[in-house]
Amino acid sequence: MASIFTKIINREIPAHIVAEDDNYIAFLDIMPLVKGHVLVVPKQEVDYIFDLDPEVLSGLTVFSQKVAKAIDKTIKCTRVGVAVIGLEVPHVHVHLVPLRTMDDINFTRPKLKLSNEELAEIAETIKGGF
Amino acid sequence: MASIFTKIINREIPAHIVAEDDNYIAFLDIMPLVKGHVLVVPKQEVDYIFDLDPEVLSGLTVFSQKVAKAIDKTIKCTRVGVAVIGLEVPHVHVHLVPLRTMDDINFTRPKLKLSNEELAEIAETIKGGF
Repeated sequence: MASIFTKIINREIPAHIVAEDDNYIAFLDIMPLVKGHVLVVPKQEVDYIFDLDPEVLSGLTVFSQKVAKAIDKTIKCTRVGVAVIGLEVPHVHVHLVPLRTMDDINFTRPKLKLSNEELAEIAETIKGGF
Repeated sequence: MASIFTKIINREIPAHIVAEDDNYIAFLDIMPLVKGHVLVVPKQEVDYIFDLDPEVLSGLTVFSQKVAKAIDKTIKCTRVGVAVIGLEVPHVHVHLVPLRTMDDINFTRPKLKLSNEELAEIAETIKGGF
């Protein structure tokens, strides 16, 4: 069965997409740790990041760098943190999290609840940073 | 002033090194979240990961992949998680953390205290995975 992220890539379910090319896509996490929390996903559906071919992994990192620079320009933060955990959705996803404190990237704390309108606005803001 | 990681690279202070090439080095975090927590560092002293040249960033990721595969082979875990936070030491470092639960990669929780002998043993174990 297609992962939830493949369904986003195929436009079967909606998402607040901020960047996309032939091989990668970036969209807002709908259960963000902080405002501007983005997921970067390879279109190839692979469960574990370190099972990606080195070329695909490198491309994912460089694509993530472009997205992180856009977040840095547009979202108030000290820097953009990175996390790849992968114990839940079985499709590689890089968390890009605008950080001010260490606790901003603590995945055990409660997530923010943002409305669809708030998420749409954040996505537009980040898109302005490319 | 050279960062603590540059001092490790220059062998001015000791570390439990598990892998090294011309551009990158990997050694145990001496304040680990779990056993087998490794830091991967570019030899070029840059503060923020997204300020690295894309080529250096790609190389860092592919080097980290090799280290993660060695950890996967030798340390009991579900998979290796990745985090880059960078609010403390101003020299890029990728945390590779052998995960079983989400809390294993929560940087706000207390760190393990391991003896030098325990760390040396873990480093040897991981080196056996290359």
